[in-house]
Amino acid sequence: MAAEVAGTISRAARREAEEPHSLVARFDADRPLSLDCGVDLSPFQIAYQTYGTLNEERSNAILLCHALTGDQHVFNTHPVTGKPGWWTTMVGPGKPIDTDRFFVICSNVIGGCMGSTGPASTNPATGRPYGLDFPVVTIRDMVRAQAMLVDHLGIEKLFCVAGGSMGGMQVLQWVASYPERVFSALPIATGAKHSAQNIAFHEVGRQAIMADPDWHHGRYLDQDTIPRKGLAVARMAAHITYLSEPALQRKFGRNYQDRDRPTFTFDADFQVESYLRHQGSSFVERFDANSYLYVTRAMDYFDLGDDFGGVLGEAFRDAKTHFCVVSFTSDWLFPTADSRAIVHALNASGARVSFVEIATDKGHDAFLLNEPELIATTGGFLSAAARAHGLPEKDT
Amino acid sequence: MAAEVAGTISRAARREAEEPHSLVARFDADRPLSLDCGVDLSPFQIAYQTYGTLNEERSNAILLCHALTGDQHVFNTHPVTGKPGWWTTMVGPGKPIDTDRFFVICSNVIGGCMGSTGPASTNPATGRPYGLDFPVVTIRDMVRAQAMLVDHLGIEKLFCVAGGSMGGMQVLQWVASYPERVFSALPIATGAKHSAQNIAFHEVGRQAIMADPDWHHGRYLDQDTIPRKGLAVARMAAHITYLSEPALQRKFGRNYQDRDRPTFTFDADFQVESYLRHQGSSFVERFDANSYLYVTRAMDYFDLGDDFGGVLGEAFRDAKTHFCVVSFTSDWLFPTADSRAIVHALNASGARVSFVEIATDKGHDAFLLNEPELIATTGGFLSAAARAHGLPEKDT
Repeated sequence: MAAEVAGTISRAARREAEEPHSLVARFDADRPLSLDCGVDLSPFQIAYQTYGTLNEERSNAILLCHALTGDQHVFNTHPVTGKPGWWTTMVGPGKPIDTDRFFVICSNVIGGCMGSTGPASTNPATGRPYGLDFPVVTIRDMVRAQAMLVDHLGIEKLFCVAGGSMGGMQVLQWVASYPERVFSALPIATGAKHSAQNIAFHEVGRQAIMADPDWHHGRYLDQDTIPRKGLAVARMAAHITYLSEPALQRKFGRNYQDRDRPTFTFDADFQVESYLRHQGSSFVERFDANSYLYVTRAMDYFDLGDDFGGVLGEAFRDAKTHFCVVSFTSDWLFPTADSRAIVHALNASGARVSFVEIATDKGHDAFLLNEPELIATTGGFLSAAARAHGLPEKDT
Repeated sequence: MAAEVAGTISRAARREAEEPHSLVARFDADRPLSLDCGVDLSPFQIAYQTYGTLNEERSNAILLCHALTGDQHVFNTHPVTGKPGWWTTMVGPGKPIDTDRFFVICSNVIGGCMGSTGPASTNPATGRPYGLDFPVVTIRDMVRAQAMLVDHLGIEKLFCVAGGSMGGMQVLQWVASYPERVFSALPIATGAKHSAQNIAFHEVGRQAIMADPDWHHGRYLDQDTIPRKGLAVARMAAHITYLSEPALQRKFGRNYQDRDRPTFTFDADFQVESYLRHQGSSFVERFDANSYLYVTRAMDYFDLGDDFGGVLGEAFRDAKTHFCVVSFTSDWLFPTADSRAIVHALNASGARVSFVEIATDKGHDAFLLNEPELIATTGGFLSAAARAHGLPEKDT
């Protein structure tokens, strides 16, 4: 990609950080966000999108929680990449998360870079980007901010909170923090705590970013640069963990790029190398490196049971929420064992829970893909939950 | 580590690259190494160690092949790190690879950085380090160089060739290239080809190195610097793949470092982060970054069946070699399926083969550790093979 084009796209991403093509809820000094680290973040803003119409009873709202590098652009064209939103397989008219029937909300997480306040936002104390002066946030902080947004929208109780991966962590946290506000919950391909291996992979990514001299100890925006190479390496390492070995084998195997024998160089000889390099370089155009540090850190800190004396079931003690927990057989980032641990805790707390393990070779990223059993499971769960919640059947 | 100390150790590593504390076999212009890429490498040298005594019949030699970041220092104290050699669990008097009985040879691979010719060696054409002017080498090239060393030592037939991981690749290549020269073979935790996922992880490491401005397009030694941060990130990413998730959980879990709660910073809060950082920074003191590029590339190119029309069994067609193939249940870098593929090919070619899958949670690195079943398997296999080879019993 030519440097000029790269610069343009990068500027688009920076503009979205402060003046997003989204709805924006602004919270002034009278309504700070109380963070787990002890800081009151104020002022702050939340960028969000909505799809569909809130019914008169305000009872048909579904909050979607995005994953590490996702954002609020679930169904519309993404303002930076120009690509479709991240869950068009699942969300839209006639889809399982049916925008003809439900009012769908998705907000960019606190610490993110698509319009919610994060490390690329202007620090009111200095007039410059926060950088590492932005406070370290947690999954619970993200959910606290979402709850303030839901209040702002005049919604007392959500019909459903749903999401995959880090989004699933937020789903679990929602039920733990606000059990009376969540009628149903759909955590997908997630865990109630981040494993040592997952922390290790995140630490590799953070070290790659911080090793890049263009990172400037987090002050790269002041220098009008970005730690492009470091962030690309972080993305490449992470991307491997989103796929399965069989999927990599099926898609790329040991196929050479545009030839049938090695070049005996360090060029991208293999298709899988070329694919990874593209994943790295395209990610840099849409995501802020400091946000990557903050959001991975939030995931690493997540250990829901630890907040309840080490007994995960206690996190769901007061919940009357209907749960559907979903995992994928080839997901080695959040393996089925992680979902089973959630289900066991829910059973121990007497919650209503169904559990589906979907057979697929697509790995962790299956939650973002056109996976028929996931789509059928989600549709079936939401239909049944809607009936239990007293929502009218859809006009056909 | 203080910069001064780091500099000292780094100089020690650089000295070993050219004037190693090892035996050295030098091959002059009349004996070039013909590489797969078409280049004749000349002159070149191989640094090696031996342990035990070659018998009169020259029939008791065992060649050990080291893994990616290993070297010839199997049993003696390492001249750079001061630590014990890499296979003291397995090699020594009374050990399965018994130096009272066998003559043990291990050489640094071509492309390495512990005294065999590699990218840190002086390019005779320029008088400067080769850097990326060093030709890209393959596993077959490494084995070709080892065969020239074995010739140099006056040994016609090796009693055994053994090694784990990349060492195991060399074991397989030895039998394919020189079937009549290998009486028995012990490939451990390896595969007959490198998988797409493994290539992907290596590519992340190479990109991390090449992203470091101190790499200087491979000419860092001319600049009196090393790509310290990039190489450390490469090592961190690779190190995760050498362990298993259960082992990481058992060793570190989510334990904090020196405290019981998060710091809400990007310091190494978790023990697993601190451990990985140490793995990265200590590796930089002993290994050359360009060698890391070359040796990972050699592994990526390895696809033994591809050299035989895609039929792996053909690689072993003429072999009368006795095989023992070993895998570990928790090894996800070279999973048991890779070893099974080798065993199936050996069966198809009518070879003598036994296969042991060892139950352990220690992951790929189990081959380097004190794993009782591996030690017992190796001892039993070598004893039986020694009898079949007509070696006298050990005096007791």
